[in-house]
Amino acid sequence: MAKDKEFVQAITPQSEDFSRWYIDVITKADLMDYAPVRGCIVFKPDGFELWEACQRELDRRFKETGHRNAYFPLFIPESFFQKEKEHVEGFNPELPWVTEVGDEKLEERLAVRPTSETIIGHMYSQWVQSYRDLPLLINQWANVVRWEKRTLPFLRTSEFLWQEGHTAHATEQEAREETARMLDVYTDFVENELAIPVLRGQKTPSEQFPGAVATYSIEAMMKDGKAVQAGTSHYLGDNFARGFEIKFLDKDNERKYAHTTSWGMSTRILGALIMVHGDDRGLQLPPRIAPTQVIVIPIGPAKAREQVLAAAEQVITSLRAAGVRVRMDARDDVSPGWKFNEYEMRGIPLRLEIGPRDLEAGQAIVVRRDTGEKTPVALTDLTTIVPQWLTLVQTGMLANAREFLRSHSQSVSSIEDLHTVVRAEKGFALAGWCGDAACEAKVKEVTGATSRNIPFDPPEQITTCVTCQKPALHTVWFGRSY
Amino acid sequence: MAKDKEFVQAITPQSEDFSRWYIDVITKADLMDYAPVRGCIVFKPDGFELWEACQRELDRRFKETGHRNAYFPLFIPESFFQKEKEHVEGFNPELPWVTEVGDEKLEERLAVRPTSETIIGHMYSQWVQSYRDLPLLINQWANVVRWEKRTLPFLRTSEFLWQEGHTAHATEQEAREETARMLDVYTDFVENELAIPVLRGQKTPSEQFPGAVATYSIEAMMKDGKAVQAGTSHYLGDNFARGFEIKFLDKDNERKYAHTTSWGMSTRILGALIMVHGDDRGLQLPPRIAPTQVIVIPIGPAKAREQVLAAAEQVITSLRAAGVRVRMDARDDVSPGWKFNEYEMRGIPLRLEIGPRDLEAGQAIVVRRDTGEKTPVALTDLTTIVPQWLTLVQTGMLANAREFLRSHSQSVSSIEDLHTVVRAEKGFALAGWCGDAACEAKVKEVTGATSRNIPFDPPEQITTCVTCQKPALHTVWFGRSY
Repeated sequence: MAKDKEFVQAITPQSEDFSRWYIDVITKADLMDYAPVRGCIVFKPDGFELWEACQRELDRRFKETGHRNAYFPLFIPESFFQKEKEHVEGFNPELPWVTEVGDEKLEERLAVRPTSETIIGHMYSQWVQSYRDLPLLINQWANVVRWEKRTLPFLRTSEFLWQEGHTAHATEQEAREETARMLDVYTDFVENELAIPVLRGQKTPSEQFPGAVATYSIEAMMKDGKAVQAGTSHYLGDNFARGFEIKFLDKDNERKYAHTTSWGMSTRILGALIMVHGDDRGLQLPPRIAPTQVIVIPIGPAKAREQVLAAAEQVITSLRAAGVRVRMDARDDVSPGWKFNEYEMRGIPLRLEIGPRDLEAGQAIVVRRDTGEKTPVALTDLTTIVPQWLTLVQTGMLANAREFLRSHSQSVSSIEDLHTVVRAEKGFALAGWCGDAACEAKVKEVTGATSRNIPFDPPEQITTCVTCQKPALHTVWFGRSY
Repeated sequence: MAKDKEFVQAITPQSEDFSRWYIDVITKADLMDYAPVRGCIVFKPDGFELWEACQRELDRRFKETGHRNAYFPLFIPESFFQKEKEHVEGFNPELPWVTEVGDEKLEERLAVRPTSETIIGHMYSQWVQSYRDLPLLINQWANVVRWEKRTLPFLRTSEFLWQEGHTAHATEQEAREETARMLDVYTDFVENELAIPVLRGQKTPSEQFPGAVATYSIEAMMKDGKAVQAGTSHYLGDNFARGFEIKFLDKDNERKYAHTTSWGMSTRILGALIMVHGDDRGLQLPPRIAPTQVIVIPIGPAKAREQVLAAAEQVITSLRAAGVRVRMDARDDVSPGWKFNEYEMRGIPLRLEIGPRDLEAGQAIVVRRDTGEKTPVALTDLTTIVPQWLTLVQTGMLANAREFLRSHSQSVSSIEDLHTVVRAEKGFALAGWCGDAACEAKVKEVTGATSRNIPFDPPEQITTCVTCQKPALHTVWFGRSY
């Protein structure tokens, strides 16, 4: 049991040092390792499996909304970046450049893509000729690189994995509808699969995507009260269409620029998943996304082992048939107590303990990772009860995270109060904003918080600017962010 | 009808110019487009969908054989390449180098990965400490870059997509078994899903992977008699383990080097799929891999349209329930004849025509892409007949390709005969080889053919070297290759 204790103690408590807790958990849970390249990580199998689960759920939703996958080159010629002025200024400092191949210098430098609007814009200009070619609804799963100064595993890495949707439309209205639709898709995925509640809204101009007309985001709150931008959807107007000549002959026989959108979600969502649900015992995975939903631990003396394992196998077979992702840890050189701690740390939603006395009573013990509740369940009821409990855990996790977000958010009317809310009380502040970028910058300077977004549906409308106290144009969420 | 004719004529016949035929088909079938980066292509949705189907089938097989996916960085520090001498010599001329980020020069150049043995070797050296950590069975889906001089869409592109398996084992025997197992997995996938028969064997030393002890390959024959190396599996001995210090404490308490393997299959397999099965009418997709297996074409006058579409929808619903991937082309501004040609060109295995007279007779017309056979089938029998026919088409395509391979392969005893077989008769030659690299080089110099592999199971053993006429150590397949 001394061993079990040591196991738990290796994770720094959240209240002591949240950053330390985060690194402890992702390391101990084997999700990642640091790579020998600045700011890059290795996604270890347990971490990559989480991304695969996200990919599967997102990809299904993209296809259901009419999108198809394609793949565009990793390298982007330097000249392409010059075609959209704000875009190049936004990304230039972070771009890695390929300047030579083998022993030969290249005539034109090639950027390693930080995002693909430019090269996709170039291709779309060749694919779009007539209104019949529109809408063009394409998604790409890819690696991208942005040489970040401060990096943090999953949340901000030099190379990361993501999907980027790129669509072209005949009209502004259709493009704006697409932008909204994909923000809905992200919201649905993040709330219903990952059990992470989000704040939906529009980014202020200073925080929007370089080259966009409007950027919309979903923002999530971590357990330390900081924000993670979980997904963004951009209406690009005809900015990229003009830069790359994406023009089409419309029904009215006029040549027009297309209206384009882009939208992306990346492996940073894994960082959010961990920081929203994790606790001092480790990870906590929502059942719908958990690669393993139930871990079966056989218990009891060696002489009962064969009988217990046989019963456990039966349970596993019937649970699998009921659509439950279940596996067993039958190692005999590790104590059950050690295993209990290990799978709590790995965040498996339900644990099933089966020992000889349970078998005599025709039952197994089911333990919830979220509440710690232990309940004996008749073996014959497992295929009904386990799926029900998985749903309960999922719903409960979302409700808890929603309550955390609500109780850590409040409206403020002065910069001082905003400072208190984001620093001392560790949460988000809802504040009025006159629309002047200088007032927004002042908030950041004084409090370290940035505007998260202008909510579509704010809990209240605030009428004076938090900085200058003049009439507010918008009500804005502010928070410190990752 | 003039329009239909034009449609077909746009594809150059294979007999006239096979290379032209290939480009015509992949362009017309919308599989790819040329990218504005040297030697790179864009995988358009119809092309990428084929790769997604391959990924799904391969990934399933990898997981069934105990492998898990992970993700390692795109960039590899220059110093890593120096640690395995043959490896660096093999890849150096093709490596793109990142030398600067933003406006800053990097202290150490970073290669864009051409393959990941080095960076994965570095990580494994940290993950493997004890025999308990072995075997380590990891696969990565990734993009890689090799700056090729001559490029050809899918078959040889500067950037390509692939999977690379990397495993570490405690003993040579286990590593060799893994190497063989993955060659079996590739064989199973390529023959049973893609209907491409392959020749299995070991590469000669001059053709093996830089840094490997032994490379095994599966080789396929295109319709122009040229070879495509469809997949490779390498036993790397302890070469990379020594270079990167992958050492473990064994059961006997001794520290030993691990034995590693790697194995890969790339998007070049799509080129093989097209060149093995395609004909003068276009693509021909094996049913098991075809994203759409059946295309439904409604036929008849406008006044019958509603009735026909309703019946077609019913057919589609019942076929989907039977597990068939089916869709309808209900466009009314394109003639049925045009559609027939289009979907033959796109290689859809079965076409289902439904018109008002068919409905009266309670039937639909089923047309096979491979044989052109047209058969009326009762609507009530479709869910039984269609899956049966899909299996027939799949089996028939493999049998045809096998017969083509057999009839274009023959044994030879002189370089002159070898030359005739690979050039004039457009096939593979089976020849004896003394084991001297000079004799192998001579074959290439005179005939343009390279050794494909030393088959595990040659149709016959040849006892004299095709070049020097001394006793042969091996019987070898030779062929011109892509």
